[in-house]
Amino acid sequence: MILTEIDHVAIAVHDLEEAVNYYQQAFGAEVHHREVVERDGVEEALIKVADSYIQLTTATRDDSPIAKFLQTRGEGLHHIGYRVQNCQAALQAMIDAGARPIDEVPRPGSRGTTVAFIHPKGSHGTLIELVEE
Amino acid sequence: MILTEIDHVAIAVHDLEEAVNYYQQAFGAEVHHREVVERDGVEEALIKVADSYIQLTTATRDDSPIAKFLQTRGEGLHHIGYRVQNCQAALQAMIDAGARPIDEVPRPGSRGTTVAFIHPKGSHGTLIELVEE
Repeated sequence: MILTEIDHVAIAVHDLEEAVNYYQQAFGAEVHHREVVERDGVEEALIKVADSYIQLTTATRDDSPIAKFLQTRGEGLHHIGYRVQNCQAALQAMIDAGARPIDEVPRPGSRGTTVAFIHPKGSHGTLIELVEE
Repeated sequence: MILTEIDHVAIAVHDLEEAVNYYQQAFGAEVHHREVVERDGVEEALIKVADSYIQLTTATRDDSPIAKFLQTRGEGLHHIGYRVQNCQAALQAMIDAGARPIDEVPRPGSRGTTVAFIHPKGSHGTLIELVEE
């Protein structure tokens, strides 16, 4: 089994402060890590739940993929990040199983991770991120 | 912090066998638990990842909420299940924070759990399930 953990579930939101406040009020949750990822045009607030994260994510520019998602689908579940020991090997295993990679080779993600995204088409409608810590 | 684990991420799929096969081929994943939940009109296949589950879910009748989701939005991420120690208390905390409950009181879920669903409206577009094992 290649997957070692649900690394994170990413939720696209319009207003990051408002979403963080809601998770604080509803669950007593605290932000564990916060980061702007310029390359992807996103700002993330990570809430730690056991050894996984809820990744509240908003757009930092109008042409980022998250901005387009928010415009067309509105707020909600955006992608799932699966933790793996070796991103390159996991990416190859997915491609061998018929997946369509968005990233042909692993690249830097947030938190110093190495990641690769897989297109929802070919993976039962789910945008998947492979995350190597 | 009320949340103790990401209990599961639910993915709506048209064909459960095909989806299970894909997860087996891509990740070497095995089905840990399988259940038809007549009340909700779903069949689930649970893949264990550390202490969480990927819940592949399909409809068993045309008028179930999952069937309507598949008809309007297609396959993809459907909801997130957060594990809690006390479903009733967590539900009340969410209501106090402004959430809109679908289940006013906790009810039986799959795997012998006690669950309550929270409407996406009021929770930043995310259908949330509180899960007490």
